[in-house]
Amino acid sequence: MPSALDTNMRFKFSILALLLQVAIIVLFGIFVEYETDNQFQTLHPLFQDVHVMIFVGFGFLMTFLKKYGFSSVGINMLIAAFGLQWGTLMQGFWHMDAGKIFVHIESMINADFSTATALISFGAVLGKTSPVQMLILTILEITIFACNEHLVTKIFQATDVGASMTIHAFGAYFGLAASLVLYRPGLKNKHEDEESTYHSDLFAMIGTLFLWIFWPTFNSAIAAHDDRTKAIINTYYSLAASTVVTFALSSLVDQRGKFSMVLVQNATLAGGVAVGTCADLLTHPFAAMCIGAIAGIISVLGFHFLTPVLASKLNIHDTCGVHNLHGLPGVLGGIAGIVVTAIQSKNGKGVPHTPGMQAAALGSTIGIALVGGALTGAILKLPFLGQASDKNCFDDSIYWEVPEEEKLHAVHSNNYDEHSRFEATM
Amino acid sequence: MPSALDTNMRFKFSILALLLQVAIIVLFGIFVEYETDNQFQTLHPLFQDVHVMIFVGFGFLMTFLKKYGFSSVGINMLIAAFGLQWGTLMQGFWHMDAGKIFVHIESMINADFSTATALISFGAVLGKTSPVQMLILTILEITIFACNEHLVTKIFQATDVGASMTIHAFGAYFGLAASLVLYRPGLKNKHEDEESTYHSDLFAMIGTLFLWIFWPTFNSAIAAHDDRTKAIINTYYSLAASTVVTFALSSLVDQRGKFSMVLVQNATLAGGVAVGTCADLLTHPFAAMCIGAIAGIISVLGFHFLTPVLASKLNIHDTCGVHNLHGLPGVLGGIAGIVVTAIQSKNGKGVPHTPGMQAAALGSTIGIALVGGALTGAILKLPFLGQASDKNCFDDSIYWEVPEEEKLHAVHSNNYDEHSRFEATM
Amino acid sequence: MPSALDTNMRFKFSILALLLQVAIIVLFGIFVEYETDNQFQTLHPLFQDVHVMIFVGFGFLMTFLKKYGFSSVGINMLIAAFGLQWGTLMQGFWHMDAGKIFVHIESMINADFSTATALISFGAVLGKTSPVQMLILTILEITIFACNEHLVTKIFQATDVGASMTIHAFGAYFGLAASLVLYRPGLKNKHEDEESTYHSDLFAMIGTLFLWIFWPTFNSAIAAHDDRTKAIINTYYSLAASTVVTFALSSLVDQRGKFSMVLVQNATLAGGVAVGTCADLLTHPFAAMCIGAIAGIISVLGFHFLTPVLASKLNIHDTCGVHNLHGLPGVLGGIAGIVVTAIQSKNGKGVPHTPGMQAAALGSTIGIALVGGALTGAILKLPFLGQASDKNCFDDSIYWEVPEEEKLHAVHSNNYDEHSRFEATM
Repeated sequence: MPSALDTNMRFKFSILALLLQVAIIVLFGIFVEYETDNQFQTLHPLFQDVHVMIFVGFGFLMTFLKKYGFSSVGINMLIAAFGLQWGTLMQGFWHMDAGKIFVHIESMINADFSTATALISFGAVLGKTSPVQMLILTILEITIFACNEHLVTKIFQATDVGASMTIHAFGAYFGLAASLVLYRPGLKNKHEDEESTYHSDLFAMIGTLFLWIFWPTFNSAIAAHDDRTKAIINTYYSLAASTVVTFALSSLVDQRGKFSMVLVQNATLAGGVAVGTCADLLTHPFAAMCIGAIAGIISVLGFHFLTPVLASKLNIHDTCGVHNLHGLPGVLGGIAGIVVTAIQSKNGKGVPHTPGMQAAALGSTIGIALVGGALTGAILKLPFLGQASDKNCFDDSIYWEVPEEEKLHAVHSNNYDEHSRFEATM
Repeated sequence: MPSALDTNMRFKFSILALLLQVAIIVLFGIFVEYETDNQFQTLHPLFQDVHVMIFVGFGFLMTFLKKYGFSSVGINMLIAAFGLQWGTLMQGFWHMDAGKIFVHIESMINADFSTATALISFGAVLGKTSPVQMLILTILEITIFACNEHLVTKIFQATDVGASMTIHAFGAYFGLAASLVLYRPGLKNKHEDEESTYHSDLFAMIGTLFLWIFWPTFNSAIAAHDDRTKAIINTYYSLAASTVVTFALSSLVDQRGKFSMVLVQNATLAGGVAVGTCADLLTHPFAAMCIGAIAGIISVLGFHFLTPVLASKLNIHDTCGVHNLHGLPGVLGGIAGIVVTAIQSKNGKGVPHTPGMQAAALGSTIGIALVGGALTGAILKLPFLGQASDKNCFDDSIYWEVPEEEKLHAVHSNNYDEHSRFEATM
Repeated sequence: MPSALDTNMRFKFSILALLLQVAIIVLFGIFVEYETDNQFQTLHPLFQDVHVMIFVGFGFLMTFLKKYGFSSVGINMLIAAFGLQWGTLMQGFWHMDAGKIFVHIESMINADFSTATALISFGAVLGKTSPVQMLILTILEITIFACNEHLVTKIFQATDVGASMTIHAFGAYFGLAASLVLYRPGLKNKHEDEESTYHSDLFAMIGTLFLWIFWPTFNSAIAAHDDRTKAIINTYYSLAASTVVTFALSSLVDQRGKFSMVLVQNATLAGGVAVGTCADLLTHPFAAMCIGAIAGIISVLGFHFLTPVLASKLNIHDTCGVHNLHGLPGVLGGIAGIVVTAIQSKNGKGVPHTPGMQAAALGSTIGIALVGGALTGAILKLPFLGQASDKNCFDDSIYWEVPEEEKLHAVHSNNYDEHSRFEATM
């Protein structure tokens, strides 16, 4: 009995996924060739670091929800594995040579990067969308991302080595716009499953730490060879500063002075996002630390004050708080890029980037992300895409076989409650 | 009171392990010298990637069982730490120079590889064997592996860069043959502890993801320098295709369209296994994707239809389903190698490998693995090797000190059940 | 109502952390410049490996306590992120050039190393100190460490490539001395929360394995280029030997022959610590295996026999057993360094290190660590630093927001107990 809330996607999902995979293989057969470059020694370790961030970092970061770990780490894997193929094509079409797309290690790094946009948006809608919806979002978002990336780097000639704008801000605002369009009044009051457990918070720290550790690689992987060391050093110290500031503010905003795992899992990473645009341009490490410290402050304040307001006033429900980890710090990164290029132009350093073009890049990125995300959200609203009912949100068991024990546990809990009530009436 | 089911292996295990370690140190003292090569920059990152796969990848992949995580990750570590020393000697004896074995970074990669065979076989017998049995299996399997590897690469001159045949198929069929000989009728009906919990499935995903991420390194680590990039690219896209196909088929084979963690944890990796033999030979990325997609299909169908039949009809109980992750995809990889060398020979590409020799390599590998595994299983059947009773299978507490809380928890559950019965009779 | 046991550190912690971060940024602004070296290809992968060890390795290793995982992995991150900035300055002040500290990838590896001392000491006092106390300890310990490191390497001209003495023994004895001064009679009887659960032990294995896997990098990262391969090979085989020996002895010291997770999590790593000083000097792999095997024996015996005595007789409570993982194997490493330099001096190999200076380095390291740790402990005893009461030790909820579910669970357990008592009196 198919209905608007039919979440059995046996044929919808499998046929869509198989068709997409076949289409990609055909397109690869027509367009894609190898290019063996001589940068193996340098790029291969960078590629593997980024690969860890995409699959382990993003995947486990989202496992903080108590009943949504399978989806977080599993659908993250699906999006990334599908997206890296799609991203290879979408980015490749902008750089064809004699009608062919040439893949090499750097293009694999870029393909991994392209999936990060969809994974960030996944964080905004986590728990509220079906795997079919996420496949569609991935196709649309990576396509639009590749266009915007081309606009930013080729038309505007803007610099964004660590992709503060083109990945982080883009992914966040795309996801937030989609989340707005997909808004469910039924989730206005906090869903009982939208919370963590002790161990789910520890699983999430696996994701946080691998993102944190390899972020210097992320921000330097596509830098010019001579600037790579600087990009790594700047990211290293920016992250360190944002981490100390995050702990400080996490304690400060809590009445009992207690740390919050949400903040430690997320705001500690804001320094990596914010230093991305100008990681290879800064000329003093302390500037990177300032950017990191400000990013930490903005991110903590965003989680503490802004996210609740976005949800209650603007109907933007952001499950993972991607606005605070990727959105605001990404914008900060874009602004830092404007300021740094302005200073360096003024000093006559002969940088090829202008503050005006940096500003255009930031503006176009946010604008395209918002419009693209809203349109995507409208498409995902189609009623046959397997979306869960409000009641079943944030629960793996809609889309996954879940171990029996958990079901028994649920029964037990019910018994227990009944039993307690029984006692209470004795 | 020693008996056939005495699982206290205090002296048996410790004396065996210490004797083996002393023997290995003596053999190293006689035979092993350093060789400092000039490939440090290239090989060291590859070595560390493989090292992560062996210890974290294989170790956590097997933690899916609810009460067998200590053994999975712990005995995995023991087998690998012991096996890499033994593998250094066994592989080294085939490549001696002036009576000496020279170790360098590549030989450490190969030593790590050799342990993978025993770790794969461990997956087939997981939960049913004692640590003493696993030490003996490791010695025998790595010894036989080194002989077969020599036969395949030196006598047959076959190519198997990612070791689809010599490691994956070998390890799987060796383990399955051992499992057949060790068959226990008492486990015919599914053991109540042979299942996962929500968090044990998440721990297993740590293993899956690190294997998935570093598989491109696995398949390229011992490739010729110029072919390494190609091997990495092929493995990357093969894995991506097998992952998308795995999700599609996982949904398709379930009546409610739900994904299965068993499949996501395992079949997603089949593309890495299957593309191994010809990762450096393929000349188009789409061919790698085809191999990956077929591997995903075979692996899912194997888990869904074949594993239950093997257990019920052929008395082959395969705890982790290594036949579907390593066996069938390994054979597929071997066949792909035959086809690719046939095509390239026909095109006169002057490859040094012939399809006939590739077929001989595949056949000999499976044959030697089956015979070797069966003989090893017969030895492991000796009644004083500390094997657990049927009832105590899949339970860490036989061989490990387990936290008190768990025992209390078990007591609580019993109390609870009694209590429920008590209520029911009120 | 502030009191000696006021653990609300809202203002104390946040103001201290922010002031320190601002001070560090100012100092970086005055002193720190980039130096782009041409060793990027070699050093970057080594840096990232060490970075994983510091943040994931040490962080998760300490998550074994059932209610202290947030602090273990979170405060580990705080100490390391703060410490690497402080370490950059403290180590840099000893190597200034024209009044400037030049940072490059090697100095980031060294900064990471410097934090390891504080993380090891954290293990000794884990569960008994506040975040404010840990910040202060980190400042003091890294400052003293940098002085001792200068003394050992520049004044004594001693060799300690893998830092068995300057990091491992130093961090352990510093922490033990602090723990002695901070001794609490109220914890004489084992605290009920000072134990693991099944899953907390698995989380700890994440830490163990990443430390184990990347230890070859740790011991070779700052070696001379030509000695790096040798240092890696020696560490690889030393760890393997200590792992096999640890399993053997773990079974042997238990009456039922069962393995202990405490030993597998820790003593398996002792081989990496002990081979550190002479990893680049040994001339035969079997010598590294002998050192690893002895380290495994010492470490297991230390955990089994010595730690209980230290706690009961000497009032030194060592939560993680850092004495057995870092202290004793570190001393063993120092002694091995003396022996190896003595043999090589005798053989006229012209090594620049003398056994006398190695002995002086070992002695000064332990002495300075003990005095520095005791003084630090005395400072941490100041009654307004937010230390938890004896009853609240080993419990995250004093310093962290902990998920509701856990609190409910605690309430349930209480209800349950009352209920059981109720039944018993029926």
